[in-house]
Amino acid sequence: MSAADTAYDALLAHARETSLLGSTSALLAWDQETYMPRGAGEVRSQQMALLAQLQHERATDSRVDAWLATCEADPHLAQDGDRLANVRGLRRDYERATKLPARLVSELAELESKAQQEWADARSRSNYRRFQPWLERMIALQQQKADCLKKPGQSRWDALADLYEPGMNAKDLRTLFAPLREHLVALRRKLGAGKAPDESFSRVMIEEPKQEAFVRAVVAAMGFDFQRGRIDRSAHPFCTGTGGDVRLTTRFHKDNVLDSLGSTMHEGGHGLYEQGLETKNFGTPLGEAVSLGIHESQSRLWENHVGRSAAFWKWCWPLAQQHLGAACQGYTAESVFRTANVVQPSLIRVEADEATYDLHVMVRFEIEQTLIDGQLGASNLPERWNELYREYLGLQVPDDKNGCLQDVHWSCGRFGYFPTYTLGNLYAAQFAATADQALGGLSQLLERGQFETLREWLRRYVHVHGRRDTPAELCQRVTGKPLSSDAFLAHLDRKLTAVYQIA
Amino acid sequence: MSAADTAYDALLAHARETSLLGSTSALLAWDQETYMPRGAGEVRSQQMALLAQLQHERATDSRVDAWLATCEADPHLAQDGDRLANVRGLRRDYERATKLPARLVSELAELESKAQQEWADARSRSNYRRFQPWLERMIALQQQKADCLKKPGQSRWDALADLYEPGMNAKDLRTLFAPLREHLVALRRKLGAGKAPDESFSRVMIEEPKQEAFVRAVVAAMGFDFQRGRIDRSAHPFCTGTGGDVRLTTRFHKDNVLDSLGSTMHEGGHGLYEQGLETKNFGTPLGEAVSLGIHESQSRLWENHVGRSAAFWKWCWPLAQQHLGAACQGYTAESVFRTANVVQPSLIRVEADEATYDLHVMVRFEIEQTLIDGQLGASNLPERWNELYREYLGLQVPDDKNGCLQDVHWSCGRFGYFPTYTLGNLYAAQFAATADQALGGLSQLLERGQFETLREWLRRYVHVHGRRDTPAELCQRVTGKPLSSDAFLAHLDRKLTAVYQIA
Repeated sequence: MSAADTAYDALLAHARETSLLGSTSALLAWDQETYMPRGAGEVRSQQMALLAQLQHERATDSRVDAWLATCEADPHLAQDGDRLANVRGLRRDYERATKLPARLVSELAELESKAQQEWADARSRSNYRRFQPWLERMIALQQQKADCLKKPGQSRWDALADLYEPGMNAKDLRTLFAPLREHLVALRRKLGAGKAPDESFSRVMIEEPKQEAFVRAVVAAMGFDFQRGRIDRSAHPFCTGTGGDVRLTTRFHKDNVLDSLGSTMHEGGHGLYEQGLETKNFGTPLGEAVSLGIHESQSRLWENHVGRSAAFWKWCWPLAQQHLGAACQGYTAESVFRTANVVQPSLIRVEADEATYDLHVMVRFEIEQTLIDGQLGASNLPERWNELYREYLGLQVPDDKNGCLQDVHWSCGRFGYFPTYTLGNLYAAQFAATADQALGGLSQLLERGQFETLREWLRRYVHVHGRRDTPAELCQRVTGKPLSSDAFLAHLDRKLTAVYQIA
Repeated sequence: MSAADTAYDALLAHARETSLLGSTSALLAWDQETYMPRGAGEVRSQQMALLAQLQHERATDSRVDAWLATCEADPHLAQDGDRLANVRGLRRDYERATKLPARLVSELAELESKAQQEWADARSRSNYRRFQPWLERMIALQQQKADCLKKPGQSRWDALADLYEPGMNAKDLRTLFAPLREHLVALRRKLGAGKAPDESFSRVMIEEPKQEAFVRAVVAAMGFDFQRGRIDRSAHPFCTGTGGDVRLTTRFHKDNVLDSLGSTMHEGGHGLYEQGLETKNFGTPLGEAVSLGIHESQSRLWENHVGRSAAFWKWCWPLAQQHLGAACQGYTAESVFRTANVVQPSLIRVEADEATYDLHVMVRFEIEQTLIDGQLGASNLPERWNELYREYLGLQVPDDKNGCLQDVHWSCGRFGYFPTYTLGNLYAAQFAATADQALGGLSQLLERGQFETLREWLRRYVHVHGRRDTPAELCQRVTGKPLSSDAFLAHLDRKLTAVYQIA
């Protein structure tokens, strides 16, 4: 065995062990949102802080640097694609980790756990002022974090955003977002002249157990493996865990089965990505998702390109009738497909339709840049939020709960994260268009419920590669083009003008 | 601040941090038994092994020895009872931890997690031979562990048992158990001449949600704080966690509400002990349960001295009627009290009545001593098990599921644990008799549902003291007497001769 082989083996064993701590933290975070009793919050924050500290100690172990250097000096490295990808990924992780002081890492972990609990409390009372001091502490720590991470000339926000989407920066996003916003606003105006679908199906009262059985059946049909994952409930749906243990959460509103379905298919899409990573690569870059934007592309693809398509509803309608019973009377696959595609500006991002969703993201993108660079004080957040909702969505925000307290992200320190949602929409559309071509028409597959063909295509072209490519490389490799809004806007125009019966 | 003060503060901060890892492991173990998908088993074992290794590293940190030595050299130590108890407890923990090599600790943790999963599988197929190789590996590691721990002249079994019940040894237990067994066998014979209660209430079919609402109401009435704990389901009920996060599990059989009630009150008793520890002492010996025997006394006291008393059923019957509805028709508080006290030798320990339960424990006590000292090979376990069930309980064991595969303990490495169940019964009876005197009659309290008086008495005399005393000291302090079978046998004789209408 060469010195490089020995170093590589040690590096991977070390990475796998570090990732055991990461997956332990993920389980604690899952528990915090699903089952943890309120009184456990204080100890939970301390547990999270300690685990973050231990992870950080391992991630910054100087042996990692030495192992990496030995691997990087190996002249044969470039010939082994897997090894190259792992070495590149671990180098990136090491450089990032060593920029952060241990104390800041554990302080942040503790604050993230605590502030999230405080946020939930403030949100339930719709009282931003209770949360403001926690947000202030969080912004201050995030600024410190950004200052540690940023390269010369890089903005704080860009330094944070790169954690979630390698290579993403505000300038490129503004270039991508400006025409997108313009087109979405124009599309909305255009649809205003069309025939709005009947919305009543999304207000039919359906008991929770029926909804649950229905959405579980859909997620099972998508191919989510319940032997290696589960679904629970939480106030905000999410997906966490990897490999053999993928935890989805969803939620149920008695009067909105389409919301439950959409949320569950969305998280199911995330879950399929995690379950599609190679088990043998667990705990190494090749066994990890490439970026949050690509992760979101998988959830949005299933939620929107599958779940909001006419073909899907042809397949799904008998299943819906079987599980939801009398609630389906008076509706058809076609009418429910149209209901699932109502476009209506609304206050809550996670409930937004496909054509206004990205406007919510843009509001947050604007605001968080100014929070992080210090231009906007936390005390002025609600005012600024409400102003941008008037400007972007034409809506009056009635209270903090439906305004700046709606999202969990800032409370748990995720600044620079929101734009990955819009990137996800764009990647999803570009992947779906490619799959449509490659598989000879998605509609024919979906209306027969042949989800495995799509799932295996995604697995083959996206999932199994882990962090082999950068997001931009992956996009180019899978779709033959760099990322743009084209496929997304073409998809929306085509579908929504049909739904709204515009010639 | 003196050197001793500084050392003591450092010692406690270190202990608190180590206990955060312990509580993290406990949560992973809880999850493994409640919600974890099957496919996560492999990674879970690795997580448990890593956490055990990290805990062990901390527990054996040589600074602990130095801090302890500084505290022990302080001439004022004896004047501060709290500090003395913590130093004594941490010294015991340190000495024990340093006797175990790190590799053995993490090997054991990994095997415990895996073997428990293998046991569950073998048990569901009632196939001991599938489990046998895992048990063999476990016994080999436990023997190594015992060899590391045992003092000169001490047996392997005694060395392991001392982990669960400080001071417990096989010789004393045999002295305690021999007359107990004799008396229990005689009592059973005596009851054979009496009038057996009608058993039909324990076979009435009651839907799970009704049973669940009922047992939750009872546990809430006992004073279990759901803001600092929760109840879930598992194949085998257990209680884990501390302070603000106590996790109970229970189970439901549609045709046996009394089993669910007993299990839940039992785990609820454990939970009250954990919730009764002082929050300020979290992570230090004063914030930990003194022993498993004392822990079990709390569960058995609530399960048997409360839950199987005539007074309790007077209070409980209207609640049962409210939740269980029609199932209660034709029964009375008095008849159900009698049903709850049927004595009938049976195959499954956790379903055993008060008068035969300890015979199950004695079977395991006999067997595990010979497994650990090597006299009995794992291949001969079923044969020996079945032989002792014939001898002690007069029963023919039909299969492994109802025989030697019924208990989880050996699969997760708990050798030397079973006798604490019988100690728990004896302590419970002695505590209950003392409380009865001190509180002017328990019956009057229970029939009015005044559980808080009993709970607060237990909290004051047992819970808040944590590991201040040894179990023997605690027993002497609370009851004024050393532990004996007297109170337990007097309680059984009195109650059961009445139930069986023997003059």
